[in-house]
Amino acid sequence: MAAPWAHRYAQRTKSVKSSIIRELLKLTQRPEVISFAGGLPAPEVFPVARFQEACQRVLATQATTALQYGPTEGYRPLRELIVAQMGRYGIVATVDNILITSGSQQALDLIAKLLINRGDRILVESPTYLGALQAFDLMGAEYVTVPVDDDGLQTCNMEQALRSGPKFMYILPNFQNPGGVTLSRKRRDELVELSDRYGIPIIEDDPYGQLRYEGEHISPLVVLDRTNLARDNGYKLGNVIYLSTFSKVLAPGLRVAWIVAPPDVIAKLVQIKQSTDLHTSTFTQMVVYEAARDGFIDEHVKLIRATYKERRDAMLSALNDYFPPEVSWTHPHGGLFLWVTMPPGVDSSRLLELALRQNVAFVPGEPFFPNGDTGSHMRLNFSNAAPEQIREGIRRLSIAVAHELEHRGAEIMV
Amino acid sequence: MAAPWAHRYAQRTKSVKSSIIRELLKLTQRPEVISFAGGLPAPEVFPVARFQEACQRVLATQATTALQYGPTEGYRPLRELIVAQMGRYGIVATVDNILITSGSQQALDLIAKLLINRGDRILVESPTYLGALQAFDLMGAEYVTVPVDDDGLQTCNMEQALRSGPKFMYILPNFQNPGGVTLSRKRRDELVELSDRYGIPIIEDDPYGQLRYEGEHISPLVVLDRTNLARDNGYKLGNVIYLSTFSKVLAPGLRVAWIVAPPDVIAKLVQIKQSTDLHTSTFTQMVVYEAARDGFIDEHVKLIRATYKERRDAMLSALNDYFPPEVSWTHPHGGLFLWVTMPPGVDSSRLLELALRQNVAFVPGEPFFPNGDTGSHMRLNFSNAAPEQIREGIRRLSIAVAHELEHRGAEIMV
Repeated sequence: MAAPWAHRYAQRTKSVKSSIIRELLKLTQRPEVISFAGGLPAPEVFPVARFQEACQRVLATQATTALQYGPTEGYRPLRELIVAQMGRYGIVATVDNILITSGSQQALDLIAKLLINRGDRILVESPTYLGALQAFDLMGAEYVTVPVDDDGLQTCNMEQALRSGPKFMYILPNFQNPGGVTLSRKRRDELVELSDRYGIPIIEDDPYGQLRYEGEHISPLVVLDRTNLARDNGYKLGNVIYLSTFSKVLAPGLRVAWIVAPPDVIAKLVQIKQSTDLHTSTFTQMVVYEAARDGFIDEHVKLIRATYKERRDAMLSALNDYFPPEVSWTHPHGGLFLWVTMPPGVDSSRLLELALRQNVAFVPGEPFFPNGDTGSHMRLNFSNAAPEQIREGIRRLSIAVAHELEHRGAEIMV
Repeated sequence: MAAPWAHRYAQRTKSVKSSIIRELLKLTQRPEVISFAGGLPAPEVFPVARFQEACQRVLATQATTALQYGPTEGYRPLRELIVAQMGRYGIVATVDNILITSGSQQALDLIAKLLINRGDRILVESPTYLGALQAFDLMGAEYVTVPVDDDGLQTCNMEQALRSGPKFMYILPNFQNPGGVTLSRKRRDELVELSDRYGIPIIEDDPYGQLRYEGEHISPLVVLDRTNLARDNGYKLGNVIYLSTFSKVLAPGLRVAWIVAPPDVIAKLVQIKQSTDLHTSTFTQMVVYEAARDGFIDEHVKLIRATYKERRDAMLSALNDYFPPEVSWTHPHGGLFLWVTMPPGVDSSRLLELALRQNVAFVPGEPFFPNGDTGSHMRLNFSNAAPEQIREGIRRLSIAVAHELEHRGAEIMV
């Protein structure tokens, strides 16, 4: 039953799509289901003892700061730690370039509030991260899309999209969610050149950058940005706003992430964040700082990489063993996801029903395409299940796929 | 220097006022300043040992849940605890009526997103909570105001405001921020009757309800709401959305608060919160649950009440002793704030400069009036300083006030 005053809802709420991923996650919490649907880190790699020490230290020595209201910009030692950490990846910034956010999802909300007027076009990869579309939808965004292949965004196919006047570009260069693909160095150079030529800023979302399992690190767009390199007058950074998070290298339950942007953009985002939630929990910021400091993340990430590489390999090898030749998939060099493409005519919602009957779950591809479905896809997460579960899950999923391929055949014959 | 793409900012950011309060807080962090400017709880009453135990217990027994992504609605045991706790104040609700938010400021942001289209009018008290205006501004709100006196909102003077078609009313019935006044029972009955007659929902913001130092508890609007009482068909709650928080009874640094609303409204708000920050930190929710459980808050609130009552009394008595007869102030029955009214012609920004020279700070009244200043006021916080500091601070402030009254006199004579 709707509220008697439901007619008072704002226009923007009509466009709020229910998150298919989160609704699915509810259905797949039965213990017998092997779920490739979520984007959950492996709980086995949470550094629990490190967090215990961190909490103990924060509350023993700085409790009144940790439990009190704090500055909107974030806890300064944490911002300094982020600056130092990013410097190792070539990102030259100061604390004035950093805003702490309540997870990267909030970074997307704040940026949407900063930049999107109802009806503005945003240039996104197709497919792209569903959560970004949801944040942008809420401020009334429309989309212009550029397709993705194994080398990421097809920069050779984007001039028309750029000429249509997008407000900004939203790009996931590393181990893209959902595609699992990585933007090549050549295309990164082309992209920042296009950004400069058209004067269109880039939001670079990089939650998984440190989780690479093969190949060489490629410089982020914020480092390659020509407008950034061109400046020598004290203006820090240029056309790229860079986002990253502690969710994948420490734990997502803390909700601590950050934005890197020019200081005047950070100042605007700070005002918006004030109005949005005053500040991110002082306590969790201090706990993250204590857990991350003294080089802990660099050490810990080795364990995460080893664990996830084994799981990715288990999934690739099971797909190879069980899946029919008409189905193809990406080979992610890092991150949490792999993207499966099925032959034309496969109904991925019906496939999900069949899969759930086999006690295995995935996310259908449709919601990742802002301007409607293009083909039939599954997003598979490989970080959350153990290798033997992954193999068993892919075996079950192959049964559902075989049924669906048959069924599709039957329909075509009729 | 502005970003080269600053022309791309959305219209809504033009209306973001810099938070005078937060900018002031930066200026007043010098240790020699006695600040009545913030709204900070007393760190002396933070239950540090209880939080230490809570963290220890959560990480020892449920670390993988606490550090993982969680449901947007919030941690279910915490929602159950809130239901039980509120039941003692007559609020009949179920877990389906509760959404956990990242502080009450986020509750205001989510409600603004749910209800406000650009140009919508919101009925607010004059003066009202600055942070609410900031959240509503971001979604393009306009305001229609109703004045406040010692019995709160002047319900006898609001029919014209209601006929002008506000989208909703935003009301702080208990120990209002900034006025320190409390809406009388008679006016509460009138207000819910008007809400029912005009079909206009009420947002009831109640962060301080449990912090009463004198007088009897008065039922919240959500309990008195006639549309709520009239329903017998399983529809839970009616025209009132109720907000409260753990910030003032445990600690604000955790950023855990909640919304009470009809289940279908909660479902919409959950979708919006998904797009805004996925969910509030699982860890802080579980720590708050462990700290609050087994009746701890009821016990702990006695200590907070005793501490703040002493501070309120110290401020009232110092004002009485030091302030000139032309200046008046409210007598708050609870909460954190007291509101001082100065004679016409006093410039409260200039007064703030004079006060800072005396090493004492307050917040000028202007930003609390959405449709422009009406008179000259100061908001004074009495929760954060010890009684002897309060007395000394009011003495210093009285020097600044005397100077300003003289100066004003000089100007008038010229």
